Amino acid sequence: MAQPGKVYLIPTVLSADTLHTIPAYVTPVVQQISVFFVENERTARRYLKALDKSINIDALQLLLMSEHQPPDTALAKQLLLSGKDIGVISEAGCPAIADPGHLVVQVAHAIEAPVIPMVGPNSMLLALMASGMNGQNFQFVGYLPVKPPERIKAIRDLEMQSQKKQQTQLFIETPYRNNQLLKDILDNCKDSTQICVAADITGPEEFIRTKTVKAWKQALPELHKKPAIFLMLAQ
Amino acid sequence: MAQPGKVYLIPTVLSADTLHTIPAYVTPVVQQISVFFVENERTARRYLKALDKSINIDALQLLLMSEHQPPDTALAKQLLLSGKDIGVISEAGCPAIADPGHLVVQVAHAIEAPVIPMVGPNSMLLALMASGMNGQNFQFVGYLPVKPPERIKAIRDLEMQSQKKQQTQLFIETPYRNNQLLKDILDNCKDSTQICVAADITGPEEFIRTKTVKAWKQALPELHKKPAIFLMLAQ
Repeated sequence: MAQPGKVYLIPTVLSADTLHTIPAYVTPVVQQISVFFVENERTARRYLKALDKSINIDALQLLLMSEHQPPDTALAKQLLLSGKDIGVISEAGCPAIADPGHLVVQVAHAIEAPVIPMVGPNSMLLALMASGMNGQNFQFVGYLPVKPPERIKAIRDLEMQSQKKQQTQLFIETPYRNNQLLKDILDNCKDSTQICVAADITGPEEFIRTKTVKAWKQALPELHKKPAIFLMLAQ
Repeated sequence: MAQPGKVYLIPTVLSADTLHTIPAYVTPVVQQISVFFVENERTARRYLKALDKSINIDALQLLLMSEHQPPDTALAKQLLLSGKDIGVISEAGCPAIADPGHLVVQVAHAIEAPVIPMVGPNSMLLALMASGMNGQNFQFVGYLPVKPPERIKAIRDLEMQSQKKQQTQLFIETPYRNNQLLKDILDNCKDSTQICVAADITGPEEFIRTKTVKAWKQALPELHKKPAIFLMLAQ
């Protein structure tokens, strides 16, 4: 049997016009791949063209994957077994974390095809670096519940776990609910708890600030519709 | 008062001779900084020279920080207040996560100096991408205890938490105990639990493989003295 193809996990930008955050070794890898799983065809085309104007986009096979439409893993398996390399590109940042690209990775492991993660921007990691909080013990829990009682319980649970384990808690919110989330945190956490707000990371309005709950209460930032990540460390 | 200086979090390579993993925008930033907090003076010099041969290393102020010698935060504060930018470089990968660079970041937040995290390699993130495991909910807990009873308890606790929350568990070990850790995992976890071993990430012997405990038991990889990260997801 031929060697199986490889799955390349290809980072993309977090913010428009920030191609400088992508390491140069991504371009030659992209140039040799003809099949990509992508979350958004238009964004992926634009990104590939930005990496290399001479790429013939129409000759590429762009396969869609989304929350509602998982990647065609049977096709992925068949391509890999025939020796074809596959690229995975998410809508923003590093793939196979917050997108269904991890299902393509699972197929690769099942048939022992190599998986090559490539260095690129990730808002969770960049926020953790810039927060000044504990990076030796941390937890990312994605979105908090939307309904008030569950949401408040989740915030209090995270604060309790943070205090007990000295663990940094990371979570996100849909951008139009960011201001509400920050308010909910400030209303329900101890004055001494540290909160980091990291918005528009790598972008033109990058804002990263760590303060205590007490200090945040003095002045609230405007986070409406900005992609943001929240970090918490209870003292 | 003058504008405070900025803290730039500057990534470095995970493995020797992998400068291609560093985005090009790091070099012009480094060129304009004259004070760096570093974990290892020799490695930092070599890295800065590799980024730009023409940098006059002797004109730079390299300030040491380590587990046993925290960074001089009073000096960091004074430099920032005088408008001086500061770079933070770890021994490998992204700084201010597994090194005392986060103490410099804390000083910056205390005086509202900007903190700029720069994109670069991080073994935890790359391993998570390549594992195929849940990236929406995960926990990094650093080193597991060394003593057998505590260690076994920690492994079982992680498996239980993973199962309950469908949470990916990430942890590391000092490279000369990697083989023992994998054995301890296989001896104490359920056959169906998924384990990813990611060793020498971005390096010449990169090895990333996800299998069930049952499948790993068939053949053990040689991990002795290789930098590795372990991931677990219980089904």
